Amino acid sequence: MRSPLCDRFGIEYPIFAFTPSEHVAAAVSRAGGLGVLGCVRFNETDELERTLTWLDENTDGKPYGVDIVMPMKIPTEGTSLDLGAMIPEEHKQFVDKTLLALGVPPLPEGEGREGVLGWLHSVARSHLDVALQHRPVLIANALGSPPADVVEKCHEHGIAVAALAGAAKHALSQVANGVDIIVAQGHEAGGHTGEIASMVLTPEVVDAVGPDVPVLGAGGIGSGRQVAASMALGAQGVWTGSIWLGTEEYQNLVSNKGWSTAFTRASSADTVRTRVYTGKPARLLKTRWTQAWAEEGAPEPLPMPLQNLLVAEAHNRINASDNPDVISMPIGQIVGRMNEVRPVADVMADLVSEFEETVARLDKLRA
Amino acid sequence: MRSPLCDRFGIEYPIFAFTPSEHVAAAVSRAGGLGVLGCVRFNETDELERTLTWLDENTDGKPYGVDIVMPMKIPTEGTSLDLGAMIPEEHKQFVDKTLLALGVPPLPEGEGREGVLGWLHSVARSHLDVALQHRPVLIANALGSPPADVVEKCHEHGIAVAALAGAAKHALSQVANGVDIIVAQGHEAGGHTGEIASMVLTPEVVDAVGPDVPVLGAGGIGSGRQVAASMALGAQGVWTGSIWLGTEEYQNLVSNKGWSTAFTRASSADTVRTRVYTGKPARLLKTRWTQAWAEEGAPEPLPMPLQNLLVAEAHNRINASDNPDVISMPIGQIVGRMNEVRPVADVMADLVSEFEETVARLDKLRA
Repeated sequence: MRSPLCDRFGIEYPIFAFTPSEHVAAAVSRAGGLGVLGCVRFNETDELERTLTWLDENTDGKPYGVDIVMPMKIPTEGTSLDLGAMIPEEHKQFVDKTLLALGVPPLPEGEGREGVLGWLHSVARSHLDVALQHRPVLIANALGSPPADVVEKCHEHGIAVAALAGAAKHALSQVANGVDIIVAQGHEAGGHTGEIASMVLTPEVVDAVGPDVPVLGAGGIGSGRQVAASMALGAQGVWTGSIWLGTEEYQNLVSNKGWSTAFTRASSADTVRTRVYTGKPARLLKTRWTQAWAEEGAPEPLPMPLQNLLVAEAHNRINASDNPDVISMPIGQIVGRMNEVRPVADVMADLVSEFEETVARLDKLRA
Repeated sequence: MRSPLCDRFGIEYPIFAFTPSEHVAAAVSRAGGLGVLGCVRFNETDELERTLTWLDENTDGKPYGVDIVMPMKIPTEGTSLDLGAMIPEEHKQFVDKTLLALGVPPLPEGEGREGVLGWLHSVARSHLDVALQHRPVLIANALGSPPADVVEKCHEHGIAVAALAGAAKHALSQVANGVDIIVAQGHEAGGHTGEIASMVLTPEVVDAVGPDVPVLGAGGIGSGRQVAASMALGAQGVWTGSIWLGTEEYQNLVSNKGWSTAFTRASSADTVRTRVYTGKPARLLKTRWTQAWAEEGAPEPLPMPLQNLLVAEAHNRINASDNPDVISMPIGQIVGRMNEVRPVADVMADLVSEFEETVARLDKLRA
């Protein structure tokens, strides 16, 4: 499995793996793909600094990337305290009432009150500054094109910039802003995702941006057949996310003991695209928590970044409750095929070998 | 482009084309695919009889199929008059009010009052009886497995039975009912469709039914790259629908002069999955008509077959109004790539040649 992206980034396979876990990212890079560390969970720059130092030292010199969450337009913001004041009382009461109804206990006094601050522009900028002190080969932005000065700074450091797009017109404006690589994120993907499915979106984005801009196919990719399908659609590589939640290396990050039960038993029909996680539509595992927000009488989720602040403590409580029925987990429709916890290297090896088999099988169908 | 289905059906390419137009079906079959005539629009068996006779005579002896709409469970039903009595006054008033607001004129006295009866089980059975007097090689059912006696009857006549499935568990139960070929219909497809996108659904269905049951990939397929992607996912062929609405041969069936404007200008984001067409979730072109049903205060669509009876006259009025902004058209997300009206043979030739190019390109990516 080769594409021009392999030479560009010095990787063996054009398999890009988004993950919040440095252990998964390092294992993917060591196995020949490109591990991309999601930074949004790092509230403290010191912690990100230590984590990237660890990555530098545990990737056998192989390349890696980082993923930040930065809107192009700089929003009004403040401390989480200022923002907290903007959250309506009705929403806070709904969250409290729902957690009570779902049997999610409170946290011990003094624990886990703070939310994820990575959704704030200023924090995302601090992530970038830390990353630039290390050796990522790629900065990906989950919210489309980053601001122009950020793109420029990355390019000065010789770092490629990737952005997620759910529609061809967004991809075109990202390229106009200097973005180097487009991640065409289909409807079936976990996390932030649009309405257009990969089968339609990928070739549309590929044709829109033209042959000089590499496109990574994202959404629904968990096997070598799906990698081959994405590359048949014109992608030069794939962007994967959900499948790495089902790896042994990810367990370092897992606090909820219900985690593996929740995803191994889920079918591909057990996800929902909803605004309850961040305020923008994102695909999550369908659980009693997401269902509560879909019931009649539930409030509309708040806009980003307020919604995440609203549910931050709830997420911490949910994670501590170890209940697979009440979980808050961004995951794609591929969850239906995630039926066991495996080492990263095994997942990678299967992706590559099934890709090769698939292409050989297709070759026999030619006239 | 070859697959075992080519030998089974005596076709050159495993491209199955669902279409309500006998002209399109015949042209697809003559071009080496399998044209499948949708029967739901035929209220009179005489008309279907004449149409299938025409197909027999205009396919150069090439095979074709027919598509019926038959639920496995036989519903309570009656004449359209009996059923009409079950439609709430609120719904009738909403339709009248909406058509007025959208500027859709009434029909001339005595015209177009009757709805499409093909959604009724008894009418679907009459379609089957007519079809058995002709030479279809395939009977496809849009609503999953037909009743066991129907499957049996088809098999006695040497006719294969195909069924549309939007989830692996439905495919399994269809196979258990004797269905020979599964059409895995992804979320991005036009018409009745489920929540799981083709990228995830196709391999899931393929693996569920095993190697002895051929699967056709459906949803989002309008180019040779998409055919190759579907076959990479494990499909033995593809089931296409929307793209044939954009052909010269289809124009015989078009009464609304806004038709080509409506789909050539639409992007892949301009569809919506809604129950307003038949009562079951189906993907339609997003127009002022579908938007009216999504507005606050609009009634919930009725269950099948009542919803279609409710909107039947509205559809006739809409079709006669020639307004591309107010149209009722089942179509998939591939509509974004349907930018001109072309002959069927050109569409087929492009599907085949782009498939070959794609597989050749993939072959170069192998290790």
